[in-house]
Amino acid sequence: MTNTHPTPVSVLGLGGMGTELARALIAKGHPVTVWNRTSARTDQLVELGAARASDPAEAISASPVVIACLLDHQSVRDTFDDHTEHLRGKTLVNLTTTVPGQARELAAWAACHAFDVLDGGIMAVPPMIGGPDAFLLYSGPREAFDRVEPVLAAFGEARYLDADPGRAALYDIALLTGMYGAVAGIIQALALVRAEGQPSAEVAPLLSRWLRGVAAAVGVYAEQIDSRDYAKGTVANLAMQTTGFGHLLDFAESQGVSAELLAPLAELMRRRVAEGHGHEEVTGIVEFLLSKGSTS
Amino acid sequence: MTNTHPTPVSVLGLGGMGTELARALIAKGHPVTVWNRTSARTDQLVELGAARASDPAEAISASPVVIACLLDHQSVRDTFDDHTEHLRGKTLVNLTTTVPGQARELAAWAACHAFDVLDGGIMAVPPMIGGPDAFLLYSGPREAFDRVEPVLAAFGEARYLDADPGRAALYDIALLTGMYGAVAGIIQALALVRAEGQPSAEVAPLLSRWLRGVAAAVGVYAEQIDSRDYAKGTVANLAMQTTGFGHLLDFAESQGVSAELLAPLAELMRRRVAEGHGHEEVTGIVEFLLSKGSTS
Ligand SMILES: NC(=O)c1ccc[n+]([C@@H]2O[C@H](COP(=O)([O-])OP(=O)(O)OC[C@H]3O[C@@H](n4cnc5c(N)ncnc54)[C@H](OP(=O)(O)O)[C@@H]3O)[C@@H](O)[C@H]2O)c1
Ligand SMILES: NC(=O)c1ccc[n+]([C@@H]2O[C@H](COP(=O)([O-])OP(=O)(O)OC[C@H]3O[C@@H](n4cnc5c(N)ncnc54)[C@H](OP(=O)(O)O)[C@@H]3O)[C@@H](O)[C@H]2O)c1
Repeated sequence: MTNTHPTPVSVLGLGGMGTELARALIAKGHPVTVWNRTSARTDQLVELGAARASDPAEAISASPVVIACLLDHQSVRDTFDDHTEHLRGKTLVNLTTTVPGQARELAAWAACHAFDVLDGGIMAVPPMIGGPDAFLLYSGPREAFDRVEPVLAAFGEARYLDADPGRAALYDIALLTGMYGAVAGIIQALALVRAEGQPSAEVAPLLSRWLRGVAAAVGVYAEQIDSRDYAKGTVANLAMQTTGFGHLLDFAESQGVSAELLAPLAELMRRRVAEGHGHEEVTGIVEFLLSKGSTS
Repeated sequence: MTNTHPTPVSVLGLGGMGTELARALIAKGHPVTVWNRTSARTDQLVELGAARASDPAEAISASPVVIACLLDHQSVRDTFDDHTEHLRGKTLVNLTTTVPGQARELAAWAACHAFDVLDGGIMAVPPMIGGPDAFLLYSGPREAFDRVEPVLAAFGEARYLDADPGRAALYDIALLTGMYGAVAGIIQALALVRAEGQPSAEVAPLLSRWLRGVAAAVGVYAEQIDSRDYAKGTVANLAMQTTGFGHLLDFAESQGVSAELLAPLAELMRRRVAEGHGHEEVTGIVEFLLSKGSTS
């Protein structure tokens, strides 16, 4: 399905993610102009019909909607700082992963130079772009979002959050933080199975199913952490969990698998039990994270 | 739906989990005998129709199928060691979380005393017991599993794994390990949102959805770890991830949220990039976990 009047779009940054974004736009019939610092990376997109810009200014000038998908905030500044005059009146959609302060800095700078910025967080890996499971979080001016939404639809579900430019970055970071915890757990789990000489083909789908179940517990955890009532609806008391988790990490070490990734959690759980919270849920350890003074 | 000839079952250990197991058996029409070290915990089940045993021997003697759901392996030994004569010819289903060596020890001891042991891992929290999302992993003699399966069906999906008594414990531990990684990530994520003064009601469903997506990546990670080919199907290169993850943890610290739970992962990612693996996936850090020598 192609738009009847597809908006021209420029994409700056053609790493693993930017390449997929550009490809999704081309597939929807948008005239696409691409730029990448290392120009060889533009070749495959030019073959698909994209126009190659020789520098950021040329890329920005080519389209009313400009997408940035670079390594980090510094690379966004490196790429755009000298080209503000070309951005005037346009919408810059920054899909580079940044933190809220950086998103707000970019918004302030955009205001000075009369262009709009939407800050976006991509909740997908490149192969998911354009598919049913990809979702992207956006914050910034609502009118700008409404205007470019038909373009953004090419990437996946577009979720507008708030006028605060930093909101998408905050949630993006929160979600990535949750992901990195899960990633550490998954790698540790698979290390245990490999150490026992078992192929992981049998355990992998079980682990995947189990983690989907764990994902369903986020709501309960969130209520406990918001209300500071860590005993609310306890289904697995911390004393029992701390005993079990200790055995689990001892088992890892006994198999020659380092427990370093999960040791800090065990330490906070033990401290929380020692302070008299063994009847509550594990979520109470958040108090240690939020009180700078008690962190080592 | 009740069985026509429901098997009598005894349940030893009535903590949060054991209580739910007993309740599920009563609901299916099994004659249930219960025992708990602290006897007050039997009251609510007796009200539902269970018989109270005054000691483990009495509980074991009451039924051909005996379920243990105690704190840990030590408490199983404390409860059963002096009562082997009563177990003769019966099936002990141990749903206490243990490690593979402990499950194998129990199986050897059962062989000496002419009873069967099935070791089980409960992949559910108590409120899920008997519901569609609960699954339990079992290992031990196949005939014993086939014989007691109609009883086990009361708890949730019963998955038989292997005659090796340690297999269920291995997978149980692997899944719990994965869960604790995710739990650390979820708590850290919610801490970041609370530190920004945001209620978590908006972000919680997004985080839950995102983690379900992460769970889908287990298969790819498992293939990389089994094959030791950490570049296979890379969708997010480690160099980029390490940069982004560093910014993320710096952001946490700048908000007054300790990054201690995730710092060890960041350290292994940096080391792996420094050793020339920046083009691969994050899974390559498993090499550090498995080589005892290089862990600190
Ligand atoms: N991959 C994912 O799964 C994923 C998921 C969600 C969000 N993201 C975010 O998407 C962004 C890009 O990720 P990616 O996977 O595409 O990373 P990548 O493959 O490593 O690509 C990085 C891109 O940034 C460019 N770049 C780096 N430093 C630059 C500078 N100083 N000036 C100009 N360009 C610079 C690179 O250009 P060269 O080609 O010249 O090096 C390349 O185009 C990141 O912010 C990432 O967090 C990625
Ligand atoms: N809760 C969950 O979400 C969950 C999920 C999966 C698996 N499990 C596993 O299920 C088992 C029980 O968990 P739970 O949530 O029911 O824990 P719990 O509420 O803390 O109950 C612990 C039980 O163990 C008994 N116990 C402890 N030490 C004992 C000893 N030395 N001798 C005899 N009995 C002893 C306790 O008796 P008293 O009442 O006398 O203290 C109580 O019945 C654990 O192995 C746990 O890993 C739990």
